[in-house]
Amino acid sequence: MEIKKDAPVEAGKMEKIIALCKRRGFIYPGSEIYGGLSGSWDYGHLGLMLKNNIKNLWWNKFVEEKSDMYGVDASIIMNAKVWEASGHTASFADPLVECKNCRKKFRADHLGGEKKATGERDLPRECPECGKVGTWLPESNFNMMFKTNIGPIEDKNSVSYLRPETAQGMFVNFKNVMDSFHPRLPFGLAQIGKAFRNEISPRDFIFRAREFEQMEIEYFTRESEWEKHFESFRKEILNWLADIGLGKDSVHELEIPPGDRAHYSKRTIDFEFDYPFGRKELLGLAYRTDFDLSAHIGKSGADLSYYDEETKERFTPHCIEPSFGLDRMILALLCEAYTEDEMGGEKRVFLKFKPSIAPVKVAVFPLLKNKPELIEKARSIYDELKKDIRPIIFDDNGNIGKRYRRQDEIGTPFA
Amino acid sequence: MEIKKDAPVEAGKMEKIIALCKRRGFIYPGSEIYGGLSGSWDYGHLGLMLKNNIKNLWWNKFVEEKSDMYGVDASIIMNAKVWEASGHTASFADPLVECKNCRKKFRADHLGGEKKATGERDLPRECPECGKVGTWLPESNFNMMFKTNIGPIEDKNSVSYLRPETAQGMFVNFKNVMDSFHPRLPFGLAQIGKAFRNEISPRDFIFRAREFEQMEIEYFTRESEWEKHFESFRKEILNWLADIGLGKDSVHELEIPPGDRAHYSKRTIDFEFDYPFGRKELLGLAYRTDFDLSAHIGKSGADLSYYDEETKERFTPHCIEPSFGLDRMILALLCEAYTEDEMGGEKRVFLKFKPSIAPVKVAVFPLLKNKPELIEKARSIYDELKKDIRPIIFDDNGNIGKRYRRQDEIGTPFA
Repeated sequence: MEIKKDAPVEAGKMEKIIALCKRRGFIYPGSEIYGGLSGSWDYGHLGLMLKNNIKNLWWNKFVEEKSDMYGVDASIIMNAKVWEASGHTASFADPLVECKNCRKKFRADHLGGEKKATGERDLPRECPECGKVGTWLPESNFNMMFKTNIGPIEDKNSVSYLRPETAQGMFVNFKNVMDSFHPRLPFGLAQIGKAFRNEISPRDFIFRAREFEQMEIEYFTRESEWEKHFESFRKEILNWLADIGLGKDSVHELEIPPGDRAHYSKRTIDFEFDYPFGRKELLGLAYRTDFDLSAHIGKSGADLSYYDEETKERFTPHCIEPSFGLDRMILALLCEAYTEDEMGGEKRVFLKFKPSIAPVKVAVFPLLKNKPELIEKARSIYDELKKDIRPIIFDDNGNIGKRYRRQDEIGTPFA
Repeated sequence: MEIKKDAPVEAGKMEKIIALCKRRGFIYPGSEIYGGLSGSWDYGHLGLMLKNNIKNLWWNKFVEEKSDMYGVDASIIMNAKVWEASGHTASFADPLVECKNCRKKFRADHLGGEKKATGERDLPRECPECGKVGTWLPESNFNMMFKTNIGPIEDKNSVSYLRPETAQGMFVNFKNVMDSFHPRLPFGLAQIGKAFRNEISPRDFIFRAREFEQMEIEYFTRESEWEKHFESFRKEILNWLADIGLGKDSVHELEIPPGDRAHYSKRTIDFEFDYPFGRKELLGLAYRTDFDLSAHIGKSGADLSYYDEETKERFTPHCIEPSFGLDRMILALLCEAYTEDEMGGEKRVFLKFKPSIAPVKVAVFPLLKNKPELIEKARSIYDELKKDIRPIIFDDNGNIGKRYRRQDEIGTPFA
C-alpha cells in the first residue's frame, strides 16, 4: 500500500495554466462580465473540443467496444426519495465553522488539522478573514446538495435536489434496463453527465467546482466474482489513462485503508495525479457490494433482484464502480501537457497533447503572406484536409514563427 | 403567411410510442421506482444513442463544417444578474390560477380560452380536479426558473437559478470568445446543453418536460445583413431536418406575426411538427436585433462592442438565433418513424429511421439456432463488422421472425 503524500507544489504553474486557458479559449470564469460566480467555469471552443475528445474516447473504450454495457442519461433533478435511500440527505455533508466576529463561514477541514478521536478539531487561532483570535462557533454539518422546489408550491413536499453524483441515475434505472434488454450478469450501466455540489469553498480551478461532469460505470456481478472484475477494471483504467496521455509516472494508485472507506465499500482505489497544488484524486474505483441496490429495494419496494436461469437462484447483484471526474481529467491533461522552454532567447509555451485528445488536429499555413498563389495553394490543401480531418485551422495572420507559437500553445500536433 | 392550425390528433399513438420507448429502452419515466417525478424522463441505451446521433449530426452541420462557428459549454447555474439583464427574473412567468376549493394550481392558458383584450381570461366554470363550480382565485404570474441557493447561507443574496435556456451562456461569453479568437463578423456561437423550466403542468411526454436539452446558435452580424443570414439559416434548417428524416411534408413554417413576437424580435419563424397531440413548435428561428448584447452591456458595464477594422466603426452586433429543442426533435423523429402494419395476420410495429440516426445500425443473426457452425460464422461476421460499424447487435435468441420484429421495433436499418 502506497502512503499518501503530497507532490511538491509547483509555484505559479496553476496561475499560468488558468491564464492560458482563458487567453486561448479553453476555459473562462463563469458569468465573468458580472464579476464571476465562485466555483463556476465555462468551457470555450478549444476546451469543449478537448472535453468532447475525452468523452468520446472514454465512451468508445468503456461502452461501445464492449457488448455488456448499456448507456443511461438520467435526469439531474430526481425524486427526493432517491437521495434518502442513497444516504445523501442524511449525511452528504461537509463540516462547517463560522467566525463569531465576521460571520464568514469556512469548511472546517480546509482550515486546520485533522479531527481528533475526541471529535474536536485543531482550528487555527485566528480567523483568516478578519484576523480575530479564538472566535469559532461550534462546528456544524452543511449538506452539499443544491436544493430547489418543483412546481408552483414552495414547501417541504416539493423540495428536490440537483444530483450530487450521476451514479444514482443508474441504480434507479436498473430494473428498466433489465426489463428492456434482459442482460445476463455480469453487465454494466454507464453515464456521462453533470453533477452539482454546493461546496462551501470551491477552489483549485476546475478541480473543485460547484458544477462538474462525471463519467461513471456501475458494473453488476455475482458477489463471488467481484475481485476478478475489480482487477480487470483496474488494468483497463490504467491502460486508458496511458492512452490519453496520463502514463504510469503521472498516476498513482492509493489503496484506501478500511477505516477511511465508505462503510459499504470492501475495496477502494483512488487514482491520484500530481496537480501543481498537490497529489489529489483523479478518479476512484470502488467495490460497493450490494449496498445501493439493497438500499433502493428497501426504500422503494421495487424488485431489483436478478434471477439466474442456470442456478435457479434469485439474488441482488453486487456492484463495482469506476467513477471518473471529467473536469479533473481535463485539468490533469492540461497540467501534464503544459511545457515551457526557450527558443532563440524567447520563452515558448506549449501543450504536449497526444493527437487523439488535441482539440485541433492540424493547422495549415501559407509560408509567405504576400504570395497570393501560396495562400491559395495552402487554402486548397486546407479545404481538402477538412473533408477528413476536423478540427483543422487555417492561419495566414502574422509571421510564420508566431503562427507556429500559436499552435504550440493550444497543443496542435501537426502544422 | 401560414395560418396556425392543429393537425388531426391521432388517438392512442402517443400512448403506443411512450410504451414502446419504455419497453425497448429508449426513454423511461424519471425516478420511476419512487412513483416517478412529473415532467422528468430518463434516456435508456437506445434513446441515448438516438440522441447522440442527432447531436453529432447537428454539431457537424452547424459547427464543424463551418469555419465561423465557436462552441461554448457554459454553466447551468449562472450569476443571478444574468437573468435580471435578460429579463427572465422579471417576466419569464406563466399565468397561474388556483382553485379556491381544492387548492390545486393550474396553468391558466392550458385550462381555457385566450386572454381577452380586457386582461380577463375565459376559464372553465368547473375545476377539472374537484369539479366545484366558479371557484378560481385571481390569476397570478409564476416564474418558471428553478431557484436555488449558492453556498452555505440561504438568503436573497445567495439566490441563483438553473438556466431556463442555453442562449445567455453564449451572450455572456461573447467578449471572452472575441478576446480568444478575434473572429470577424459574421460569426456564431453554438451550444448544446440542458435547460430547466419549472412548468406548472408538464405534459405530452418529452415535449414539455421540466428538464430538457437545447441546441442553440447565436449568430452575430452587422444590422444591414441580418435578412441575408436569416434566410440562409432558414434554408439550412429545412435541409438539415430533411437529412435526418423530417421532410417538407412534416415540417411547417409559421411566420409569427408582429404582435405575437417577443418585443425585441423583428422576425421569428416557428418550425412546427404535427405531433399526435397537435401541431406544435419543434424549433424557432429569431432575429433578436442587438437586444441581448445591449441588455448585458447595460447591466454589466462590459464592452461587448465590435470594432470594424475596415470601416473604423464600433457597434453592437445584431443576432440571429436558431434554437432547437433536442427532446422535441427526438419525439418528432419517433412519431415520424412509428409505423404499424400487418404481416401474415400478425400486427407489426416498426420505426422507420434513416440509417444516420438509427440507434443500432446493423443486426446479425444466425439463421438457424441449432447449427453451431452457423452461429460461429454469424458471430465472426459480427466481430468483423463491429470494427467499423457501431452500434451493432448480435441476436441468436428466439425464431428468426421474432428477431427481425425486434429489430424493426427499434428501427435497425440492416439485418
